[in-house]
Amino acid sequence: MYLGNMSSGRFINQHHVGALISDYSGMASRHVSATRIEAAGASGGVAFRQAVMAVASGMNDIVVVGGAEKMTDVTDEATNEILDSATDQQWEATIGTTFASLNAMIARRCIHEGIATREEIASVAVNSHANGALNPDAQFRKAITLDTVLKASPVADPLGVFDCAPISDGAAAAVLCPLDIAEKYTDTPVKVFASTQASDTLALFQRKDITTFGATVAAAERAYSIAKIRPKDISVAEVHDHYTIEGILAMQDLGLFKKGDAGKAFTDGRISIGGKIAVNTSGGLKARGHPIGATGIAQIVEITRQIRGDADKRQVPKVKYGLTHNVGGTGSEVVVNILGAV
Amino acid sequence: MYLGNMSSGRFINQHHVGALISDYSGMASRHVSATRIEAAGASGGVAFRQAVMAVASGMNDIVVVGGAEKMTDVTDEATNEILDSATDQQWEATIGTTFASLNAMIARRCIHEGIATREEIASVAVNSHANGALNPDAQFRKAITLDTVLKASPVADPLGVFDCAPISDGAAAAVLCPLDIAEKYTDTPVKVFASTQASDTLALFQRKDITTFGATVAAAERAYSIAKIRPKDISVAEVHDHYTIEGILAMQDLGLFKKGDAGKAFTDGRISIGGKIAVNTSGGLKARGHPIGATGIAQIVEITRQIRGDADKRQVPKVKYGLTHNVGGTGSEVVVNILGAV
Repeated sequence: MYLGNMSSGRFINQHHVGALISDYSGMASRHVSATRIEAAGASGGVAFRQAVMAVASGMNDIVVVGGAEKMTDVTDEATNEILDSATDQQWEATIGTTFASLNAMIARRCIHEGIATREEIASVAVNSHANGALNPDAQFRKAITLDTVLKASPVADPLGVFDCAPISDGAAAAVLCPLDIAEKYTDTPVKVFASTQASDTLALFQRKDITTFGATVAAAERAYSIAKIRPKDISVAEVHDHYTIEGILAMQDLGLFKKGDAGKAFTDGRISIGGKIAVNTSGGLKARGHPIGATGIAQIVEITRQIRGDADKRQVPKVKYGLTHNVGGTGSEVVVNILGAV
Repeated sequence: MYLGNMSSGRFINQHHVGALISDYSGMASRHVSATRIEAAGASGGVAFRQAVMAVASGMNDIVVVGGAEKMTDVTDEATNEILDSATDQQWEATIGTTFASLNAMIARRCIHEGIATREEIASVAVNSHANGALNPDAQFRKAITLDTVLKASPVADPLGVFDCAPISDGAAAAVLCPLDIAEKYTDTPVKVFASTQASDTLALFQRKDITTFGATVAAAERAYSIAKIRPKDISVAEVHDHYTIEGILAMQDLGLFKKGDAGKAFTDGRISIGGKIAVNTSGGLKARGHPIGATGIAQIVEITRQIRGDADKRQVPKVKYGLTHNVGGTGSEVVVNILGAV
C-alpha cells in the first residue's frame, strides 16, 4: 500500500500514517507493506509513481495507492503556516511570501510578457467550475462567470479568491497490478503508459524564467518519450490549477498549446469538454477541491473514469490517452502520468 | 533521489525536503526526481527499499538515497510530542503513553514470561556502546558497564536512560545502480539480495503478543526466502535497538536466536565482534545515534563497510551476508535488507 499525504503530522498530529492505513484497513494482520510519501502538493502523484514502480519491479503484484488529507481540524492561521512550510523556509516563507503571493508574481510576469491576459487567467477557474458542476464528487458544484473571478476579493494582486483552490478534506484511491493479471479483476483495465517525475529549485527566485515550470517540461518530455505518443494524442488532462495561473503554465509546459496561446485556449473553448483537449473535467483543484495528498490520486481516478467511459455528464468522446499533472510547491516537484485504454 | 525523513515539517518547519535535497545538491538543474519517504523510525529503511525498486523497475539507473533528521532545533517538550505523534494518536498518545513507556511494557512482559532478564536487556546497551567506542562516526564513543545501565536514572520502569537511544542530528547516504554497471563506479560493489517491508497495527495493545514483532518476523521470512539464505548465513546485523528490549526482540524475530535465548546471546558474547553473529557493530541506535530518518541508511552504510572490509577496528571477519533491520513505531512498520558480497 502507498499513501500520498502532505502533513498529517501537523494537520492531525499523526505521523506514520502508512502503518495507520494498513492497520485501519485491516491489512496489518497480513503484514502488508505500507509507505507514506510526502512531496507537498505532488504527494499523491509521487505515491502513484512509487506504486507503479512497486509493480514494475516485480516486488508487488497488487498495490493499493491512496491519497488523503484532513485540513480542517486546525485554525486558518495554522493551515497557512503548514502550507507555507512547503516553500523554501530560508529564502521564501521567512520573508513573508505565501504560495498565493508567489503565484501572483508568476501571473504578473505572464501578463507583463504578454503570455496571458488577466481575463485568460481568470478563465481557468471558470472552466474548472463549469466542469465541477457536472461532478457529484466535486467540492464546489456550481458554475461561475468570468465576472465572479475578476470581481472577487483580492488575495495577492492580481489573484483573487476565485483564482485559488480551496482548503479541503478528502481522499482517493486506485488499485494497480500487472496488466496480464488485470483482466482477472476488471473488464475495463486502464494501462499506465508512463509515469515520470522531475524536480526544480525549491525557491522560485532561483529560476531563470518564472513563466514556465522546467520540472513540468522535463517530466512531460520524458513521459511522451516513454509512452511513444505526442501531446496531440492526449484528449483529456487533469492539471494542477492550485492557482489559475498554474493552469495556463500547465498547458504550455505540457506542450499542449504554445506559450502565449494557452490562455486563449481557456477563453475560446479549446480546453472545454468537446474541444481539442478537455482540461480538468473533474473540476480541477479549484472546484473538485485540493485535499493536498489526495489530489494526485483524484486526478488518476478522473482520467480512469474518462478512459472507461464512466464520466457521465462530463464524458469526453473517444478518449484514447489521458494525462495527469501534479505539482508540489511552486513547480518544485512535478509528476506526469499518461494513462490509456488497453 | 530518495530521502528518508520523519518530520522536517515539525523539527525544522520545512516540508517538501525531497525537492530541497535536489535543489541544494545542485541536481534541480537536471530536473532529477526527488522523493521523500516518512515511516517514523523506519523512514530510512523504507526510502532505501524504494530506491531498490526504482532501479529494479528499470525507471532509474543511478539512485542516491539519503536519510536525514535535524532534531535539536526544538525544545525537549516539542521533541517528545513530535516523536509521540508516530504512535497511535487516538489510542496511545492521547492517554499519555510514549515510546519509552510502550517499550517498558514490552520489557516488563518479556521479564514476566522469562524471555529475558533485566540484566540481559541492559546488556544490549553495553554491546552497542562497546562497538560505538570503535566507530569514529558514532554519537557516543565510550564503552559502558552493565552497572551504568542498571543504575541509570529511570525513564519508564524497568527502562532507564541508558536503555534509550538518544536524540540526534545526522545524515547518511548510499548510491544504488544495476549490478551490471556497478563495476564502472566501484571495485567493491555490494549486492542487495533482498529488501522487504511489513506492517503491523499502529497501537501496541492490538497485538495478540507484545513479546514479538510480527512485522519483523514477516519481513525477515520474506527476505530469507528471496535471498535464498538462512539466518545462520548472516554474520553481521544492524538491528533497531531504539530501546534495549527491541534489540532482544530483533534477535528472536529475525530468527537469529530462539525466543528465550536471544537475551543470553547478549551476555555470553555470541553477538559480539568475533562471536556467532556480530550485532550493531556501528554502535546501533543507542551509541551511533538515532537521527530518525537517517538510521535505516546508516545501517546500510555500516553493513556495506563490513562487507567491503572497511570497518577498521570493528571489522567482522569473513562477512558474506549482512542484514539491516529498521523499525517504525512500536514494530508498526519494519524493513529488512540483506546485503552481500557480489
